[in-house]
This record gives sequence, C-alpha cells and structure tokens, in this order.
Amino acid sequence: MHSTAANAELALLVEVAGTPKPGNVDRERDLADLRFEQFLAGAVGARPGLDACCDPNFGLGDGFERAVAGMSDRAETNTQFGALLVLAPLVRTAATGELSRDRVRDVVAATTVADAAAFYRAFDHVDVFVGDPPADAPELDVRRGSDAVPAVEDRGLTLADLMRDSADRDGVAAEWTTGFERTFAAADRIAAADGSLGERAADAFLALLAAEPDTLVAEKHGDDVAREVTDRAAELREDAAPCAPDRDAVTAFAEDLVARGVNPGTTADLTAGALFVALERYGVTP
Amino acid sequence: MHSTAANAELALLVEVAGTPKPGNVDRERDLADLRFEQFLAGAVGARPGLDACCDPNFGLGDGFERAVAGMSDRAETNTQFGALLVLAPLVRTAATGELSRDRVRDVVAATTVADAAAFYRAFDHVDVFVGDPPADAPELDVRRGSDAVPAVEDRGLTLADLMRDSADRDGVAAEWTTGFERTFAAADRIAAADGSLGERAADAFLALLAAEPDTLVAEKHGDDVAREVTDRAAELREDAAPCAPDRDAVTAFAEDLVARGVNPGTTADLTAGALFVALERYGVTP
Repeated sequence: MHSTAANAELALLVEVAGTPKPGNVDRERDLADLRFEQFLAGAVGARPGLDACCDPNFGLGDGFERAVAGMSDRAETNTQFGALLVLAPLVRTAATGELSRDRVRDVVAATTVADAAAFYRAFDHVDVFVGDPPADAPELDVRRGSDAVPAVEDRGLTLADLMRDSADRDGVAAEWTTGFERTFAAADRIAAADGSLGERAADAFLALLAAEPDTLVAEKHGDDVAREVTDRAAELREDAAPCAPDRDAVTAFAEDLVARGVNPGTTADLTAGALFVALERYGVTP
Repeated sequence: MHSTAANAELALLVEVAGTPKPGNVDRERDLADLRFEQFLAGAVGARPGLDACCDPNFGLGDGFERAVAGMSDRAETNTQFGALLVLAPLVRTAATGELSRDRVRDVVAATTVADAAAFYRAFDHVDVFVGDPPADAPELDVRRGSDAVPAVEDRGLTLADLMRDSADRDGVAAEWTTGFERTFAAADRIAAADGSLGERAADAFLALLAAEPDTLVAEKHGDDVAREVTDRAAELREDAAPCAPDRDAVTAFAEDLVARGVNPGTTADLTAGALFVALERYGVTP
C-alpha cells in the first residue's frame, strides 16, 4: 500500500471525471461501448499493479502487466491501457526518489528485455486498438501478445527499444523517448491553474489536443481527421484567449466527436500522467 | 491487497457516480462545499483502512478509524464517514466467510470496547454532522472524539452498544442493529435491475429514500422536512409505477434539494453498502 500508487489511481479517476474532454468518456458522457463506471472499476483493478510498479525489486514490465490484468479483470474491457503505460515509469520514478524528467529518463533507460516481454504479455489480457506493425517486423506485432515474446527475446529488445521504435506513430511511446516532456508540461499547467482538479484536467486535455494530433485518432481515422480535431481544439482555445474556451463550444465539440466515434484516447492517457505528476510532484489536491 | 476491499472502494466510487441521487453529490452535481473529485479522493484514501477491515487480526474499529483518517487526509473534508461505518462490518463479514445477514450480526455482536474507543477516535480526523447526545450522557458526545474514550471505557460500552443506543435517530446505526436489513434488500434490488451500475445505484437510492425518512436530513432540518423529502420520493416512484420514475422529474427533485441544502446523506451511505453487497455477494459488474 503505497501513497504513490494511490496518487496514480486517483489520477486515473480524476482523468475520467474531468469534463468536457472532447471525444472521451468523462463525467458527462459515456461512449457507445465504454461506460464511466467501467473506468472507475479499471482504476480500482489497476491498483495492485500500480503498487508493484512502486517496488524496485519488481520488474517494471511485470508491474505494468499486473496493472493491465487487474484493470481488464474489473472493467471487463480496455479502459486505461495507454494511461497505465504512461503511469508505470512515472510511478517507478516517484517511488524511488525525485519525480524529475532526468530520473524518468533513467528509469526508461534501465528497462530490460524482460520488461519488453511483460509488455507483450499485457496484450493477452485485453483488446487494444493498435495500428499495423512495421512491414519489416511482422513477428513483433503487439497483437500477437505473448506469442511475440520469443521474437522480442531473440532480438534482445528492451521496453525502451520498443517505445523508441513506435515513437513516430504513438504519442505514449513518444513520451517514453523524451523524458515525458508533454506530460510534465501539462502537469505544470494543472498545478498553476484554478478550479476543481477535474476542470483543470479538462483544460490540460484540450491544451494537449490543440498542440499535437492524437495518435489514436490518426491510427483509427487517418492523419487528416487527427489534424482536423487538433485544429478545432486550437481554434477553440485561440478564439477565447486569454480566457478559457467557452464551455458550450467545447461541449458541442465533445458531442460532435462522440457522435462521429472519434476518441482522442492518447491525449487522455497523457492527461492521466499529467495529473499523477501534479498530485505527486506539486501536491495538488482535489 | 484484498479483492473484498477493492469491492468496497469500488462501491464508494459507484455510489457517488450514480445519478440522479437527489440532494447528494453525484456524477451530474456538486454541492456548494463538496465536490465530486473529493469523493474520488476519499474512496482512494479509505482503501488502506478497508484492507485493514479485511484482516480478522486487526480490530474492526481500528480498521474503520484508519479508513476515516485516510479518507479525510485525501479528500480534505468528510466525504464518506457514514458509508465507511456501513461498510466496515460488511467488509469484515465478507472477508472472513459468507456475506450473509446472520454472519454480519455475529460480526456486530463480536465488537468490543476497543472498537468503540476507535470509533470515537475516528471523529478526531474529520468534522461529522451529528445531533446532540442523549441528555443523560453528555460525556458520550461523539463530537468530543478521543476525549470521550475514558467515559466509553468506564461504562464498558462496545461498538454494538453504541450503535444500539443511536439506532432510533441514525439510519446507519439502525442497520447495525438489524443485520443490515435495508442494505441487503437494496443489494437484491441492484442485482435484479438492468442498466449501468450507476443507474441501478440511483434507483436503489430513490427506493431507500422513498421507504424511510433520511436521518441526516431529520437531524439537520427536522422531522417534517425529512418526511416531506421521503413523501416526494415515494410519489415520484408511485406516479411512474411499474416503470422507472421519469428522469427529468427526479432531476428536478435533485436540483430542488441541492438548492435548499437538503442532503439525504444517510440514504447515500446505505446505497454504498448495498453496492458493496451487490458486488461481493452477487458478483454484479460495472
């Protein structure tokens, strides 16, 4: 029972509560196939794995796999796979010393082939939407789950290697390669803002979305849709600057995205990470 | 880390998410001095105490006190004191065998003076709204917190004794004396119903409120207001029978109660207990 793991669980809960978060499940909206309560259950179920991520004697990949398995078991679907992939190295970093970008880089650099194998095994527990693997490495398709572990081991790939190879098409993997640059910047924004933590999470989400196209949207709907969504988020923010965007306009955007099935899930994953950093590093409170 | 404690934490989370729950914080409404995010934090903070309630070598009162302290520390206010008082004996019962009304009666009967002392100490961690103590026992005023422990010990009062003495004016204490009759009946209703678990929680809340006046409302606003609220809940249900009450009508009721500061918090506490029984005994899922 570790207070760092409690902060990570709370970050998952506040992330899903933050509203409006266009295109995502939030306090005001469910999606056709994902309900708010399933996210609550997923966060509770992930807790033992988050506790394991705090323990430096426990493989980081194993902690992540345990978190995904617990989430999937409780939520009975995939609610927070990407968010847990953001949180795992941040939690390990915070539980073992200062939560700084330099130290999380060290945690990433220290990942092993065993961590990579556990990452693949995590896909056995849950259906995750992912794009096609690189044409030259079909045997590394994450959709193969644990069946791909021998190929990972043969090539001696660490979890950091896997993330580096996916960074150009996966916003979570990109964070692993930059010392979580966008996550920490969003945490600074949350810590500096006023309002309830849920409101601050929603504001951070919109700022992240306005800055870079969501990679889950790009994989599912193509680069043009991802760019259009980001442009729309940027426009909403620019039109209102220096004030916060008009809530009705953001709500209309949210309803449009939900109706079109466009779900910027990667941006929500980074928001969960930012909330964790804000809770753990800045001591923000709900 | 106990799956029974996880179910208790999830019950707290789904309880606050269930909407509309007239007069209470829910997925759609905050109160002036209580925010949704604080309930999320309170549930996470209560978890170590809920884990302790699972351990038969740990005093039940101590587990309850630890849960309240953790809740208060995270939420920075009182969010779920009453709900934890419902959950503590139910969690102990479930963690040690079958979760039946007979067995929870045994758990209640086994409480000690030490459990009563811990119950009083729990009031040190948080401001709880309570009515005046019996005129013949001012030294047992729970608002005295740990200062009242010597008086409790002098009289040899167990936690079951304290609950019996409050049962006529506190709906949670009443449940302790009846083997949690209303809680188990509401769990049956939740298990038998359709819809998301949050919707089923809201329906169970309204049924509980329609059946008996809320004792927190009675303490704060008088018996007449408590009766009026219950009559209104009953009317909404009767007008719609055999269908579910019209959601807009329940929402209007909710907004009226929030505007008047009328908060049927005891009924929400029983709803959290019912959700726990439904999760633990019937295996309902979100």
